[in-house]
Amino acid sequence: MNYRFISNIIGRILLIEAAFMLPAMIIALYCHERASFYAFAVSIAVIIAVGIVLGFVVKPVRGDFYQRDGLVSVGLAWIAVSAFGAIPMCISGAIPSYIDSFFETVSGFTTTGSTILQDIEVLPRSVLYWRSFTHWLGGMGVLVFLLAIGPRNTEGESMHALRAESPGPDVGKLVPRIQQSASIQYKIYIVMTLIQIVLLLLGGMPAFDAVTITFGTAGTGGFAILNDSMASYSTYCQAVTTIFMIAFGVNFSIFYLLLIRDFKSVFRNEELRAYLGIITAAVVAIAIDIFPMYGSIFQAVHHSAFQVASIISTTGYATVNFDVWPQFSRMILFVLMFIGAMAGSTGGGLKVVRVSLIMKIIKRSIATALHPNSVKLIHMDDEQVDEDVVNGVRDYFMLYMILFGASILILALDPFVDFESALSGVATCFNNVGPGLGLFGPICNFSELTDFSKIILSIDMLLGRLELYPILILFVPSAWKK
Amino acid sequence: MNYRFISNIIGRILLIEAAFMLPAMIIALYCHERASFYAFAVSIAVIIAVGIVLGFVVKPVRGDFYQRDGLVSVGLAWIAVSAFGAIPMCISGAIPSYIDSFFETVSGFTTTGSTILQDIEVLPRSVLYWRSFTHWLGGMGVLVFLLAIGPRNTEGESMHALRAESPGPDVGKLVPRIQQSASIQYKIYIVMTLIQIVLLLLGGMPAFDAVTITFGTAGTGGFAILNDSMASYSTYCQAVTTIFMIAFGVNFSIFYLLLIRDFKSVFRNEELRAYLGIITAAVVAIAIDIFPMYGSIFQAVHHSAFQVASIISTTGYATVNFDVWPQFSRMILFVLMFIGAMAGSTGGGLKVVRVSLIMKIIKRSIATALHPNSVKLIHMDDEQVDEDVVNGVRDYFMLYMILFGASILILALDPFVDFESALSGVATCFNNVGPGLGLFGPICNFSELTDFSKIILSIDMLLGRLELYPILILFVPSAWKK
Repeated sequence: MNYRFISNIIGRILLIEAAFMLPAMIIALYCHERASFYAFAVSIAVIIAVGIVLGFVVKPVRGDFYQRDGLVSVGLAWIAVSAFGAIPMCISGAIPSYIDSFFETVSGFTTTGSTILQDIEVLPRSVLYWRSFTHWLGGMGVLVFLLAIGPRNTEGESMHALRAESPGPDVGKLVPRIQQSASIQYKIYIVMTLIQIVLLLLGGMPAFDAVTITFGTAGTGGFAILNDSMASYSTYCQAVTTIFMIAFGVNFSIFYLLLIRDFKSVFRNEELRAYLGIITAAVVAIAIDIFPMYGSIFQAVHHSAFQVASIISTTGYATVNFDVWPQFSRMILFVLMFIGAMAGSTGGGLKVVRVSLIMKIIKRSIATALHPNSVKLIHMDDEQVDEDVVNGVRDYFMLYMILFGASILILALDPFVDFESALSGVATCFNNVGPGLGLFGPICNFSELTDFSKIILSIDMLLGRLELYPILILFVPSAWKK
Repeated sequence: MNYRFISNIIGRILLIEAAFMLPAMIIALYCHERASFYAFAVSIAVIIAVGIVLGFVVKPVRGDFYQRDGLVSVGLAWIAVSAFGAIPMCISGAIPSYIDSFFETVSGFTTTGSTILQDIEVLPRSVLYWRSFTHWLGGMGVLVFLLAIGPRNTEGESMHALRAESPGPDVGKLVPRIQQSASIQYKIYIVMTLIQIVLLLLGGMPAFDAVTITFGTAGTGGFAILNDSMASYSTYCQAVTTIFMIAFGVNFSIFYLLLIRDFKSVFRNEELRAYLGIITAAVVAIAIDIFPMYGSIFQAVHHSAFQVASIISTTGYATVNFDVWPQFSRMILFVLMFIGAMAGSTGGGLKVVRVSLIMKIIKRSIATALHPNSVKLIHMDDEQVDEDVVNGVRDYFMLYMILFGASILILALDPFVDFESALSGVATCFNNVGPGLGLFGPICNFSELTDFSKIILSIDMLLGRLELYPILILFVPSAWKK
């Protein structure tokens, strides 16, 4: 393991984090939030100091960097940005417990959006800004950002790090050079973010709200700045957010293909068709189910579309308390949590492409049971899927289910939680959604849990965001061997 | 598809079922249970009539019999024996609803042991006998019995049918000739059954109780004839049952190896070591956890061992209401439900060998994430496991989890059940255990469910007992093509 190289990467990422904290400090100054201003100033100083030591004092002596180093770098980097990003929340007094601050920051960076806050509106603006900004940064990826702007990345380093951080079974190869690909993705991301802010401003949303709500949408995070999430904004603003939640759940390659006018490839994309098909079916089914509660087709479709977009994209905003919806609608939303968004988007969950592959694998397994001697290959986008990718999906699903089950069992030991809440709490954190059902419904929060449970859920959020391996291998002794 | 051949098999199985109903009719006569006597007489007449039509009037014109025919035969045969086996329970008035009788009979043949009865003790003896006997017959397999005694089986027919009915990823090849293997297994099964009956009689258990309790143990079923399950029997009888529950969860090949004195192969068997290791660890952990409730080491170990043996072997007897045990112990028992017994035993669940393979596959997947270019093979019992077997386990787990999740979602729509109960109800039926947690705990039953939920759980029990495919393909249109 190339520890010095890994230290170097983490150091550089911390310096980027410090730079991104500056706007929060300026907001604190502008809003006369004294405690927060000092909290951010101290945090920035500490992060810069640690970043310089790790990034420049420790110098890499060797250039070798393998997949193992990439995975460990990503895992440690995400823990580091969360651990340091939590400092201002804690020392400003906004969230007095460090464990709570850590949970909240992990929830931010992993774009989960689960909160331990009982009253969000009392928080200083600078802390609210930083909290929402973690969604934006975490959505596209911390290392991807480093690659997008970094000057001196070797191809190997980039490849391994990007593969570990990008969601989905395969890194979308937009353009041959990884660094250029990261930079194109970030450009698309920034432009889409700006468009949403403008559209929300046009709907009369206050500027601070428009920016923070957009951060939460772009990263598919879901931290709001009002206690009722998105309920008190206008129908127009809710509808704009619905559309952007769906859009940020789309693989960024699709937008690139649209930009270069390769409409044929877009249309041929099976995952996109499945994603939009699932959304349409879920919106219609739930709208019919909740129609009696709202009495108007428009309202039923509006709230159904918002919640479906929010859950499948794993954002987690709410316009209504969907935990009181009929059981059938709740079950649909629960299933959507697991499906999640498209690979290569900012969303979480299993990803639509994996779910499609799982269905195809199962179909093949039934066909093989019927006709044992026939050989069947799996196709996606009219191309044959390599059996290594198929095996990767199989193993991912296995590992996902076992970690999921283990987390539920551990959480069920918490005296505060019943079984449904343990299940939905883990489901929502592991899939990076945010709100769950029962005790963790959209109008509830995670504050009552024991510190131990909060740490378990924090690990679940990191496992989910980084697709298991980068976090999991940190617990495997053989990963640390020289 | 060779429909005539399949009809022939089902006809012969129904005739065997009719023959096995005769003792119940004789018991009804002996105990002066008038209604039950007529119920069994009518049922036997109906079953014989249908059996003769299917088995002898419809004559197979072709001899071809492929795996697909084997799977469909097994799936339909199990549904047929359950549907006809339910008739006497229903028309005797013991269980007035046919859906309830069907649920109870499926629960019997699949050796689940879940009941819709609120008061078991009011049932006529003949019905109690038949109910327990379904466990004994279902444990070893209905088709296996046909093979063991049947005169005219082609090797192809036997092989395909046996593979579909035998639990575990691979048919244990005791002896080359399948028919001989089935007959050896049944001989071991009968001898072990007789030993347990004698040992229970020596402990002073009434003869009727000794026979029915042994039927439930041998099949790892769990239907008792008293409302408190096994609580009112002596500690000696409970301890004997503990040992036999563990023994009937062992692969029958192991007993054969012991008989031919091949101790080396027994010792080398990884699954056996894992099975006994898990039991030991669970007994110790639960005994420590429940010690404060019982105040005596002996009592804590006794009840812990009984419940652990009962759940991992998927029998489902209870000496105490373990649903009131501390959450930690409940969680261990919940996990044991999924692990289940050894392949090639009468037990259910995923099977220890599959769980071992899943762990090895996950370990390999983590190793591959760390070192992508190294090739790793999976070993079991010091031999390399074929990748086809590995893929079979992967797909089985995937299908298992998806059917499990889908069942929970459907059951959660039942107004009677909360989420924990839906989860534990499906877990206990799908794994053929019997009692679950919450609403379906050991002192509760499934009577309050809607008929729709009862049918779903009946399908789950059949899916679990026959290891998914034989039942699943009945719903696949392409299985029915000529």
